Amino acid sequence: MFDLSAYLLDRKSRVDEVLVHILQGPAASDRVKEAMLYCMTAGGKRLRPILCLAAIDALAGDSQADSALRVACALEMIHTYSLIHDDLPAMDNDQMRRGRKTCHIAYDEATAILVGDALLTLAFQVLAEMGPQADIQASTLVEIIRTLSLAAGSRGMIAGQMLDIASEGARLSLETLEKVYRLKTGALIEASIQAGAILAKASDDQLNRLLTFARNIGLAFQISDDILNIKGDPSVTGKSTGTDALRQKSTYPSLVGIEKAKDKAKDLVDQALQALSGFDKRSDPLREIANFIIDRKR
Amino acid sequence: MFDLSAYLLDRKSRVDEVLVHILQGPAASDRVKEAMLYCMTAGGKRLRPILCLAAIDALAGDSQADSALRVACALEMIHTYSLIHDDLPAMDNDQMRRGRKTCHIAYDEATAILVGDALLTLAFQVLAEMGPQADIQASTLVEIIRTLSLAAGSRGMIAGQMLDIASEGARLSLETLEKVYRLKTGALIEASIQAGAILAKASDDQLNRLLTFARNIGLAFQISDDILNIKGDPSVTGKSTGTDALRQKSTYPSLVGIEKAKDKAKDLVDQALQALSGFDKRSDPLREIANFIIDRKR
Repeated sequence: MFDLSAYLLDRKSRVDEVLVHILQGPAASDRVKEAMLYCMTAGGKRLRPILCLAAIDALAGDSQADSALRVACALEMIHTYSLIHDDLPAMDNDQMRRGRKTCHIAYDEATAILVGDALLTLAFQVLAEMGPQADIQASTLVEIIRTLSLAAGSRGMIAGQMLDIASEGARLSLETLEKVYRLKTGALIEASIQAGAILAKASDDQLNRLLTFARNIGLAFQISDDILNIKGDPSVTGKSTGTDALRQKSTYPSLVGIEKAKDKAKDLVDQALQALSGFDKRSDPLREIANFIIDRKR
Repeated sequence: MFDLSAYLLDRKSRVDEVLVHILQGPAASDRVKEAMLYCMTAGGKRLRPILCLAAIDALAGDSQADSALRVACALEMIHTYSLIHDDLPAMDNDQMRRGRKTCHIAYDEATAILVGDALLTLAFQVLAEMGPQADIQASTLVEIIRTLSLAAGSRGMIAGQMLDIASEGARLSLETLEKVYRLKTGALIEASIQAGAILAKASDDQLNRLLTFARNIGLAFQISDDILNIKGDPSVTGKSTGTDALRQKSTYPSLVGIEKAKDKAKDLVDQALQALSGFDKRSDPLREIANFIIDRKR
């Protein structure tokens, strides 16, 4: 029987070890280095890195290779940079994140802007620095850099955040809300799975199935986040509760009600699992992560 | 006789054409796209792209190749992103840039943060998207991405900006000031020349000479910027004058006086030219750009 907790703990600790090793390298600014470490070691779930590694596992690739762990770290750096910038006063103005003061509260706004910039840049550096000595071809690296930059950029995550801010206070249609979610959260979750698939040399059919899986769990994840913002326990989630309602943000539960939102998330996870029907038991980690996404408390 | 104005105009128009083509591609957020175009078409000197292309010319490479122009565009995107973020209220709080309202004034702070993020990400995307069809090997691309990310990151440009902000109001030693300049401005100028050298397959000796050239003009450029901040004509520079003094910033002229600062800049350009002594007349563009840096009005 597959033990999800053990799997998550193992993968998280592997990723964290490489992350901290990278961040503790030589620095030209002690303040930037310290703030980067502060933000990156605040105890996130490491969902995106783990999805990348689980996709590699599903394809019988080597999820413990240095290249795999570095790609996983790059994903977490991009995710964390986006949180730091989204938390800024000019954006979502959040004070708490992952159970700690947000970066601009713990340091200051200028530092938070620069630390976000630094983590985004470092993500690409970590990939490019693997260079010739690594267990990965340059053309594969370029494809992964392309995948991550597309997901993170103005046709992905950044567009999602812009639309999200622009629609504060407005009642969105379900269609528009799903577009925002697909861009803001979905794009990087899909890229995490896609990067794993590229590393493990997935066939076109396997890649398509994995992307269908990713698209469905991406939306389910965001819906469950909406529900946690209403019913979550801040001491467990590490984030304030009720902030969406306070900002009059359209969310899945605000548009269709909590019960229908839960049903939708469950449907999405079912569809995600269906996309994996051709995969053997090595895709159990992906399956269990999909189930976990709607059962989680944080 | 080499015509610098014609050279600068020609290279700038080639770069601008590719830049606008890239930025006018499909967008997921009209606002981000519009603001990116606003910031990127405000009429900068395109110094970094032109230095990259001039380095290629000096090495008898193909500075008109699509790959060269895309690398040049990536450099300008990184430079422009850094200006947008540096101009933010939490950082330098500048209202005017390149003769226009800065991004956060023309749009708003959230948009300016996201547009900076988007341009930084796009720089790497533009490089990675060249992919297999282009006139460039994947391993060369990875080396260029590595060079740019190192220069832009927390051991380069970002550390420079952090130190610059942290030292506002303090009287720096000349040594510390030079460190700030080397990181804040020098790193990306060096990377521009280095990227050109990588594209044109420079020998180690050629690369070292070009990097010496770059290091010297990088510092000369920043000193001349300090002088323009005192004696420049805002209608020509497109920036406010006297802002350094207002912020009590240590600058080269504030520490040693204007005349000694001018002498220093001239010395640096002489040393830069000396580093090119082994190059033939194809390096005339680099030579003339070096002279132009201390004679410029903007």
